[in-house]
Order: sequence, then C-alpha cells, then structure tokens
Amino acid sequence: MLNRVRSAVAHLVSSGGAPPPRPKSPDLPNAPSAQSAAPPGAPRSPPARAGSGSAAPAKTVEARASFSRPTFLQLSPGGLRRADDHAGRAVQSPPDTGRRLPWSTGYAEVINAGKSRHNEDQACCEVVYVEGRRSVSGAPREPSGGQGLCFYYWGLFDGHAGGGAAEMASKLLHRHIQEQLKDLVEILQDASPPPLCLPSTPGAPGSSDSSHLVGPQSCWSSQKEVTHESLVVGAIENAFQFMDEQMAQERRGHQAEGGCCALVVVYLLGKVYVANAGDSRAIIVRNGEIIPMSQEFTPETERQRLQLLGFLKPELLGGEFTHLEFPRRIQPKELGQRMLYRDQNMTGWAYKKIELEDLRFPLVCGEGKKARVMATIGVTRGLGDHNLKVCSSTLPIKPFLSCFPEVRVYDLTQYEHCPDDVLVLGTDGLWDVTSDCEVAATVDRVLSAYEPNDPSRYTALAQALVLGARGTPRDRSWRLPNNKLGSGDDISVFVIPLGGPGSYS
Amino acid sequence: MLNRVRSAVAHLVSSGGAPPPRPKSPDLPNAPSAQSAAPPGAPRSPPARAGSGSAAPAKTVEARASFSRPTFLQLSPGGLRRADDHAGRAVQSPPDTGRRLPWSTGYAEVINAGKSRHNEDQACCEVVYVEGRRSVSGAPREPSGGQGLCFYYWGLFDGHAGGGAAEMASKLLHRHIQEQLKDLVEILQDASPPPLCLPSTPGAPGSSDSSHLVGPQSCWSSQKEVTHESLVVGAIENAFQFMDEQMAQERRGHQAEGGCCALVVVYLLGKVYVANAGDSRAIIVRNGEIIPMSQEFTPETERQRLQLLGFLKPELLGGEFTHLEFPRRIQPKELGQRMLYRDQNMTGWAYKKIELEDLRFPLVCGEGKKARVMATIGVTRGLGDHNLKVCSSTLPIKPFLSCFPEVRVYDLTQYEHCPDDVLVLGTDGLWDVTSDCEVAATVDRVLSAYEPNDPSRYTALAQALVLGARGTPRDRSWRLPNNKLGSGDDISVFVIPLGGPGSYS
Repeated sequence: MLNRVRSAVAHLVSSGGAPPPRPKSPDLPNAPSAQSAAPPGAPRSPPARAGSGSAAPAKTVEARASFSRPTFLQLSPGGLRRADDHAGRAVQSPPDTGRRLPWSTGYAEVINAGKSRHNEDQACCEVVYVEGRRSVSGAPREPSGGQGLCFYYWGLFDGHAGGGAAEMASKLLHRHIQEQLKDLVEILQDASPPPLCLPSTPGAPGSSDSSHLVGPQSCWSSQKEVTHESLVVGAIENAFQFMDEQMAQERRGHQAEGGCCALVVVYLLGKVYVANAGDSRAIIVRNGEIIPMSQEFTPETERQRLQLLGFLKPELLGGEFTHLEFPRRIQPKELGQRMLYRDQNMTGWAYKKIELEDLRFPLVCGEGKKARVMATIGVTRGLGDHNLKVCSSTLPIKPFLSCFPEVRVYDLTQYEHCPDDVLVLGTDGLWDVTSDCEVAATVDRVLSAYEPNDPSRYTALAQALVLGARGTPRDRSWRLPNNKLGSGDDISVFVIPLGGPGSYS
Repeated sequence: MLNRVRSAVAHLVSSGGAPPPRPKSPDLPNAPSAQSAAPPGAPRSPPARAGSGSAAPAKTVEARASFSRPTFLQLSPGGLRRADDHAGRAVQSPPDTGRRLPWSTGYAEVINAGKSRHNEDQACCEVVYVEGRRSVSGAPREPSGGQGLCFYYWGLFDGHAGGGAAEMASKLLHRHIQEQLKDLVEILQDASPPPLCLPSTPGAPGSSDSSHLVGPQSCWSSQKEVTHESLVVGAIENAFQFMDEQMAQERRGHQAEGGCCALVVVYLLGKVYVANAGDSRAIIVRNGEIIPMSQEFTPETERQRLQLLGFLKPELLGGEFTHLEFPRRIQPKELGQRMLYRDQNMTGWAYKKIELEDLRFPLVCGEGKKARVMATIGVTRGLGDHNLKVCSSTLPIKPFLSCFPEVRVYDLTQYEHCPDDVLVLGTDGLWDVTSDCEVAATVDRVLSAYEPNDPSRYTALAQALVLGARGTPRDRSWRLPNNKLGSGDDISVFVIPLGGPGSYS
C-alpha cells in the first residue's frame, strides 16, 4: 500500500500537482503540497526517521503569509489586524452573512495576551469528497461521484514554537486522511467484512478466504475479524503519520516551523471519529451528561512511555538526562543519600541511593502545566517539532514525541440526539481555566436562550466559551468573574451539534 | 536503598538465615530462602537481566515435594491424594475445624481435568508483621512490636509449564513485600508527607526540605507531593521485581521451574491494594454493584507494548518473528499482495504490500484464549519463565514478559460495608466460564442463604463459585447446567469479606 501511495503521489506531482476533482467540497482552501506527502516505504518508527524514499522532492507550500487565520473566518485585512491585536483580544467567528459552516458548526477564537506574536492556533472545517483510487475488485473505475464517499472534517491545531506546523496541518491533514481513505471507498460501502488481503494489481484474484490456511500453531488456526470502523481508525492514524513525515521533509524550507497539537473530528458513514494528539480536548455534552472523547498527552500522562524509550534507547538521552523520575531536583551534596524515584515500570515511589548518574537532569520533570520533557516541551504528541532541540544542546527531542493520535469512536446512530447535544472541541486555552462541568453548564445556559432551530446558537455558544475562558481586562490582566486569571493563551473552540434541525445540512 | 537491602540480606544469610521474629504471624510457612532475594544494584530493566550483584549466592529452597497444596488447607496425605485426583475433581477448602483464615476469608480450589499432572495453582493467606529496618530519624530501634506494622495478605498464583514458580511465589512473595515495607514502617505511621530524601546513615541529617532548591527551569521549581499510598504501591511493585529476580537466580536449581501469574491483595492501614500480573482477576461486589479491581495482561491487551519492544529491540525477534500484526497467517504465494496489518502505534488496521520479512512469524497472534506471544505463551505478565524458549528454538521469551503488576487501591474507610460486600479473587479457571455478573449473582444467592454472622458463609461462596465453574461430569466431560463445557483448568477462588461481623478478626 505504501508503495502505491508513493506511486500515486509521483503521478500527481508529475501531472502538474493539480488536486483531483472534489465535486462536493467546492470551498476547500488551496493545498498545493497535499500531493507531495511522499511516505517512506517502511512501516512507521517512533524515533526520528531519515530519508524520504524515492518519491519526487516535495513541492513546498507557497510562501506563507506572516500571519493567517482560518479561511472560513473570511477576514478582511482590517479584520485580520483586529484578530491579531493582543490588547483588544476580540473574539472572532465566521460572519453571519457568509456561508455557514457544515452542520451549523459554531466556532470562535481569540488571540493570546502576548505570549506569542500571532495566534498560533489554527482551525479547519471542511466537507471532503473521497474518490476511490481504483476498483478493488479490478473493475474499471466508475465515473467520479458515483462511488465516492464524503466525510465531514473539523480540525483544531495548537501551534508552539512558531505557527508554521499548525498552519500546514490545518491546510493539509484532511488531504492525508482523504488519501488514506481512497483505498477504502469500495470496502467501506460494502456491508460484508473487509477483505484481509487485496490483489497487488486490479483484476488479480485476492486471497481473502481462509480455506487454505495451514499451520500447526493453534494461534494461527483462525483469522481476526477486522471491522470497517477499525479501517477508518487506521486511515486516520496513518494520515497523522504521513502529515508528520511531510513536515519533516519540508522543514528545510521553514514551512513547518515549530510543532502543533492536533485534535481532529471525522464524521463518516454514521460515526464520529475523534483523533487527538496533544493537549487539546473534546467532550460530548448530551442531555447534560459529559462524555469525554479524548485524553491529553503530556509528560505526566505519558511518563512511562517516555521513560521506557529512554531506558531502551539510552543514546537518546545523550548522557545529559536520566530516565528516572525524582520528585525534585537532587543536589550534588545529596550523593549517597536515599531519594524517592520512579522508573518506567512503576506507578508508585520507592527510595534509592543517589548515585552519580542520578544527578543528570531527569527526562521528565515538573507537574501540571509546568511538566516538561527534557526541560523543554510540555506536550508529548503532535505534528512537527522536527528541529526541536534541548535548550543549549544539540540533543533532538522529536524521538520522544509521538505523532500518533488516540482515536475514539462515537456512533451517532445509537442515540437520538436533540438540538442541545453537542461535541465541543477546544485548545488548552479553553480547558486550562474551564472544567468539563463548566462547559456543560454554559452549553445549557446559552443554547436554552436560543430557538432550537436557530443556526446561530452554536456560534453564540462557542463565543460564550471563548469569552468565559478569556475573561475581561481588569487591573492590567484578564480576569474571570471570580477574579481568577483568565487564559492568556490562544483559545479556539468548535461546537458541533449532534442532532436537531439544520444540523445535517 | 538497593545496596542496603543487599547488605541486610547478606547479614541475614551470614547470621544463619533464620527469619527475623514475626510475633503476630505464627502460622507462616517456612520460607528459608526469603532472605536470599539479593537484588541487583541497578534499577530494574524489562529485558532479562544478567548478574546477581555481589550478594552471597542464594540458598536454594529445600528440596520441593513433587506436589503440594496451600498449608492452610491442612491436607492429610489422603486428602492430598484426593486433591490431586483429576477424575473426581473434589473441591478443597480449609477444614471447618481448624484455624479460620484471617478476616473469615473463604477459599476453595479444584484441580484441572487432566491438563497438567498436578494442580499448578497455589495460594497464600497470611498476616505479616513488618518490623522497621531501623529508625529513619536515626534514633535507636525500638523493641520489636512497638513500632511495627501488620499487613493482611492474600495471593493467588496460577502456574504454567510446571508448578515450581507458583509454589515459590506462594511461599516468598509476601516476604519480599515485607522486606520492601521495612523502610517505610515509621514513614507510613507518620501523618506528615513522606520525606523525599533520607539520610544515607541513621542519625545523619536528611534533606527533605526544598528551601535550597535552585534551577532556572520552571519545571524544577517545585517538588512533587508523594503520598503514603504511592509508597506502598512502589513497595509492592519492587517486591514483584525482586521475587522475579530471585527466581532467575534459582532457576539453575530447578526450584523455580515454569512461571506463574500472580494476583495479590495487601490490606494495610485502611486500604486494600490489589496487585495483578497475569490473567487472574479481582472484583469487588458491593451492594450488588461490580467494581473491577484488576485487568488481565495478555498478548491482546499488551499487543502494543510487545510490538514496541520488538520494534525498538529487533534483536529480540531473532530474525524469526516480525513485530507487525496480521489478521491471519500470510501465505508465501501472497507476496506482493496487500494485507491488513497493525504496528505498535496503531489501534486501527491498514493495508500494506506484503514483503519478504512479513512472512516471518508474527510476534503476537491469535485471539482470546488462543492469543500467543511468539506462538508460545498466552499471558504477558507474571513471575518466572526465565528458561522459557520459543518452541524448537533458543530464542528467549522472557524479555517480552513483564513481572510488574498493575496495582489498584481501594480505600476501605470510604464506604460502610455490609457483610455481603466481598472482594473475589479467581484464577482464569473461574473467569473463563463465569462472567462478573454471574459471580455477583452467586454472591447474592449464597450469602443470602447464610446468617450474616456465620463465618462459614464465605467459604461456602468460594465453593459455590468453584463448583459453578467446574460443572458436573456428564458425557465424559465436565458440563455446566446450560450444557456448555465447564472449566478444565485449575480453579482457585478467595472470597474476602469487606465488612460485617467477624470480618476484621
């Protein structure tokens, strides 16, 4: 499959790079390098990978404006300046007058309070048409439109160390998902279980039957059932991987500076897939009940994965770090005393005698928002960061970061949703100062103030959530009604209605 | 700490190997080699570790009888023969007339239907006294009994490939826990937070304050709070590790043949710690509600951990296995076709072109009870297995197995328990044919037939659970009332009452 993707990519590049026709998604942004996502031919590897295979060199994204906001905001130059104003921190939403987002999705965002020059969050909301790559059964491809699939797509990207990765991901990640789904167009529309094996060339006989299975081992005497759902999950996982590899290839051109968390929702054939890599969060609020749809990936939640990697590959620690965790910094004079520690196998703590190498900096340290990998980064999954090094060192951090999302699936058909049932996506700017319960209360308060069929209610809700997290200026800072500090971070929120009039436009 | 354990061990060995006085646990079985658990000096490492440090060679367990059952069953030679009878499969419980198990614990077991020569399950139920190793504050040690701690202990050990490991663990694991807790006797009884750092020698000043913390990195500007609970968890985790290392050291003497799953409960200072390494299971049934207290560790539940290890350390696969998972065996003639696969990062499936190395045997294969690591073993955590090799190969499997338990904590003081609230521990012989709900129904049915203060009710319940899983002989097999096959495996069950008269004897 991987080689085939590469060939398809080469074909697209050589044919001028124009994207294939996408009849049902006329409002897609330009994505000239979506076709250059040449994946290496081998299965993925968590540590940094070299080489880009034999694919044609990637065409770089056209010279990026110094600052951009999501296309669907339809910002004028003046609007763009207001969106970029740290002092005013005006909340931005799509205009009432323009094209409404699919599903009457609500969106709002606000820039940070001065933490970075520009808003490093990015967002994308699209309907994407997937044309089958070719007939799996070997039959000639049908004219486009007849057999294709549509998926709805929402993406939030929280950038760090520059806005390039978030911007690139917002323009291209759905194209990688589209590419991965091309293989599956026919399979997903066929009620029978997916074939385990496909012919190498169209028309050749496949071997998805198990009648010629042999093998003495009982663990080989059966075959696993693979669901359609798990194929979509696999496609999304691979799309994240290929997006990250494209960033690695284009980092020389500075198109993908920095890195970003990615929180993505795909609606396809009745199911909602929520894929999260980073510290953004998605929850469903359904009849007042909260259903978590993601978990955060931080040095604290991924401590054991990070420590295991440092333990198994000590060369990644460069002699500067220890994979052991200690509850505080060890002083050289404490050598020989006994300190609490945890290694990669432990969830509890125990005492160990402090040895010389324990004085190295710990791979994982700190708590909460101050937790860091290698004293540098506070989030452990996401896209990009290929150039990220430990401060005053040449030691790369990327090997410890994972580009793979956790994917949760919610079956929309299993529940009759009312217009007040929503999926809320937010970057950490929202969640740092707002609990799930507070979001649910705001959902109730705002939506009950609007008619159920008023499509503007979801944007009003997104705005209320962003405003509630930003607060109001008071005493030269941003304060919440309880006088606590509001979020000084970029804040971006999608509100996706799960049912009700107009939702499934 | 590790060196100190080693010194203490050396001291005990040199002083004749006699265990320290244990005033409150007079019925402990002999454990002559408990003191020989000399841990290597370095923190643990998941792959097999060589070397035993500088400790004195371990004294081996006295020549093991060819077959033994838990001491608390008080079996006569005739009783031992009946317990060993595959045809009759008589359910065994402690005699009504003898010493009751602590907490009026119920216990029952039955031998397998011929799967192995003897019952390879083992069990242990003890009250263990922990005398402080020495005063943390540097003061001279108090006379024993004044400052010590008691913990209640239950252990189920499901052996495989021989009964040696299970028997050894049943005799010694609680001694390792005791050893680990010796450091903590004073700390756990002090209401203030545990000191982060202890002096290397008694009487020397510690440095648990943070007043002299320095460091520019914000992730180092604070210190973590470590709870008493997490120290107990760490002690149990380390005890499993040291038990496993002792088995490695004694494997030459064939005392620790095979391996075993270990499910252990420690009650200490108001909290119940449930530690599980393997495919046994613990649930609490409280007011009819089921609270899972463990998860099973199998090639399916640990697939990604196993694959990651095979990916990062390909030498462990010996050129014979691939870390990729496929839904069925690949035929050589399918080379070049596209097959579904999953790697260590994926939860979904995708297609890949079959290459030559994909024809290797997969590291993880099969489903349910037929799932295997390296086509050999169906459980991925436990103790022992140091000699386990891939069938017709010299490739060791131990590097893929973990001896570390998952530890869950249940605070007994947070809920007022009634006499019908119980913690049920069972080896997989129970759970293979009995659901959690069926166990809860049996709990209700049996306990309601006995007076709440009848201490024999918990053994009656354990017997009912074992009988319900074994079934009755019919048509030359063991059948359940619904005519499905009963469990042909060894079945062992503890029922631990969580409240009510007589429970806290």
